Amino acid sequence: MHEKTAKPSSTSLSAGLSVREAQACILGKATPLGTEDISLERALGRVLAVDIRANRDLPPCDISAMDGYAVRAADIANAPVTLQIVDDIRAGDAPRAALRRGQCARIMTGAPVPGGADTVVRVEDTRPSPDDAVEILVPVPAAADIRRRAENMRQGEIVLRAGTSIGPGTVGVLATVKQATVTVYRQPCVAILSSGNELEALREPFDPARIPDTNTYALMAQVQAQGVEPERLGITRDDPAELSGFLERGLANDLLLISGGASVGVHDHVRPTLAALGVAMHFWRVEMRPGHPAAFGTLGHTLVFCLPGNPVSSMVCFEQFVLPALRALTGHQHLFRRTVPARLTQSIKSRPGRVEFVRVTLTRNASGIYEAVHAGSQSSGDILGMARADGLLIVPSASKGLATGETARVQLLETGAYQAESDLGDGV
Amino acid sequence: MHEKTAKPSSTSLSAGLSVREAQACILGKATPLGTEDISLERALGRVLAVDIRANRDLPPCDISAMDGYAVRAADIANAPVTLQIVDDIRAGDAPRAALRRGQCARIMTGAPVPGGADTVVRVEDTRPSPDDAVEILVPVPAAADIRRRAENMRQGEIVLRAGTSIGPGTVGVLATVKQATVTVYRQPCVAILSSGNELEALREPFDPARIPDTNTYALMAQVQAQGVEPERLGITRDDPAELSGFLERGLANDLLLISGGASVGVHDHVRPTLAALGVAMHFWRVEMRPGHPAAFGTLGHTLVFCLPGNPVSSMVCFEQFVLPALRALTGHQHLFRRTVPARLTQSIKSRPGRVEFVRVTLTRNASGIYEAVHAGSQSSGDILGMARADGLLIVPSASKGLATGETARVQLLETGAYQAESDLGDGV
Repeated sequence: MHEKTAKPSSTSLSAGLSVREAQACILGKATPLGTEDISLERALGRVLAVDIRANRDLPPCDISAMDGYAVRAADIANAPVTLQIVDDIRAGDAPRAALRRGQCARIMTGAPVPGGADTVVRVEDTRPSPDDAVEILVPVPAAADIRRRAENMRQGEIVLRAGTSIGPGTVGVLATVKQATVTVYRQPCVAILSSGNELEALREPFDPARIPDTNTYALMAQVQAQGVEPERLGITRDDPAELSGFLERGLANDLLLISGGASVGVHDHVRPTLAALGVAMHFWRVEMRPGHPAAFGTLGHTLVFCLPGNPVSSMVCFEQFVLPALRALTGHQHLFRRTVPARLTQSIKSRPGRVEFVRVTLTRNASGIYEAVHAGSQSSGDILGMARADGLLIVPSASKGLATGETARVQLLETGAYQAESDLGDGV
Repeated sequence: MHEKTAKPSSTSLSAGLSVREAQACILGKATPLGTEDISLERALGRVLAVDIRANRDLPPCDISAMDGYAVRAADIANAPVTLQIVDDIRAGDAPRAALRRGQCARIMTGAPVPGGADTVVRVEDTRPSPDDAVEILVPVPAAADIRRRAENMRQGEIVLRAGTSIGPGTVGVLATVKQATVTVYRQPCVAILSSGNELEALREPFDPARIPDTNTYALMAQVQAQGVEPERLGITRDDPAELSGFLERGLANDLLLISGGASVGVHDHVRPTLAALGVAMHFWRVEMRPGHPAAFGTLGHTLVFCLPGNPVSSMVCFEQFVLPALRALTGHQHLFRRTVPARLTQSIKSRPGRVEFVRVTLTRNASGIYEAVHAGSQSSGDILGMARADGLLIVPSASKGLATGETARVQLLETGAYQAESDLGDGV
């Protein structure tokens, strides 16, 4: 009676949710975890949990923007004129004294402008003169090439907001305001479990009749790509006692990924065992292809995702459901893969009612428009196609298919972040 | 005589290279390092150094693509018809015996198709019947819902080529062919040094007259974003003996980044000290803004980059020069930031002769076209603008500026990889 027990017990679960409904359901349960203090050296990729204020003015005083001579503008109004060099100021120096009429100071980029000076003349507009003097060849307007105190940052102002994803530029700002320790959202503990009698572990001997455990490692890498190191629980056989032990261990985490169980026999055990452990299932079907048998439940704050056993389906479901949840837990505000428009080079048939995610590679035509080409077969067993794909082309739920030349949206997978040619905007 | 010694000694160096020439010069010296064997769990982001072949057929035999009944097509040509269930085959099981006329086997997704059977009828096209029988309601064509042996992967075929960047899909393929250990290009040892008397270290007490050491941490994060953990050498004062000690330590690495020294006084020491240590400088100026005083040299296989002291300039130079070099050393084939077209919402003036990199944030208008907005002031002292930027908009070298509404290329920085809204191609 496998086919009967496979049906969800609640009728509200039996009709699948749309992808958007499923995402909304998940994100309603995925709130940022607590915060923790970490060293700046470990902050890349994390999310600020507090506002950050400047601890100083930057520049700390008026400084020179160029190598040259600090002068009084009034002295050079009738240039050429020769001025006496009374100081030689480098970045980090304190000027000796204020300039008086007829005086100037040699000054380096970033060095403090001495009192009395109100402009900087660049080296190339001067000529050395004997006896510590310099000839200023042209008049320059007052305030030229001076960067004003606090022009870039004023002490006390908020320079970064809570919720900022920490990229290299953000790390630069944090270093600038001397945040050696940073308060960020905590990262989730993630556990990964593969289920299925047919699965052969990575380091088990080769058995031609069995199927390699692809999902543990593909999901691990998808989690790692979010900067989180997951715990691999391994493989559970289709046995209630063994499964229960694994699930109990998995449920001690913030997020549990279970792949496999697309075959009804295993489902029989996963759902009752999750229920026996207190997990409330929120949906059990999503109107998407691949990935239809995706399911989601919670136990307290723990999020539980049941992903299809098919590696491509499992990875596509991760992209739509687990990735936004992981990013929400870690406090990110941008939760979804970036999308770009791309033109189809092949037609795609689709059954309306389910969003279809087509694995594509992207190339760019002469006008800079993305063109999408199928990444190998669209068999959901084709992990090679998933490895080759630059993105997931979306055939919307209502569509009966797309014709060659039509434009569709493509979710960019990370392999698309770099390109082979240096693009300097000159079309070369 | 600072302004004199600042000039390169060779006249061929005194005219700056174009960005493209500088990149070509660097990439001519940046060849992949050796290889190493690492565990699959650590392979994400690395680059395969060898071709990988399939160790098995996948599927390993003909398997069912659905939950249902394996039958002989001839038996059901005149459906409805009732068949005897003689087996119950799940994924990982071995079928008991070949089917004979009038027999069928209950079969789960992924389970091996028994001998004699040549098609699968889905559960929904059947009705249970008493005494271990099932009624097949409709005829289905032969070969329906069977995935053929080796359909996705054939033993011995090359499934991944040397030079492949390892993303989650690639990890999935490697797990599928049981590569618990993977041969990848070695990662470079990278050292980072900041120079300047005015610099205050991150954990030093606050001194309002000094400047925080932004570059060490911004560069560190840029290197970390490439999956490499750099060594931070710290801050060197403008003192030949101290500098020499730091440089010697730095030159023991594959790649040395020195920031600062834009002030002539420090240049005085950096160049002769590098020369005294045997470093050959290949260029000392690049026609770009910001970042004009970028320099590059080599000692044996060690690449040495002198980056401007200004944090924004230093980060922009990293993007153009160090990032492609780092990616080349680690065996990547796509070395450059991906670019997209974006429409300007503001005009930009530019002096021809230098490529200009404008820090921009990107938004998308109703037609899905990117629009670029200045990320704060374009002062090269504005590290906040760099933190906010989604990309670097390129004003080509020949351009006198760009008008509002014109389209330019934007190099995408990593913050642009995710978006706030779920895009499922339906315009919602």
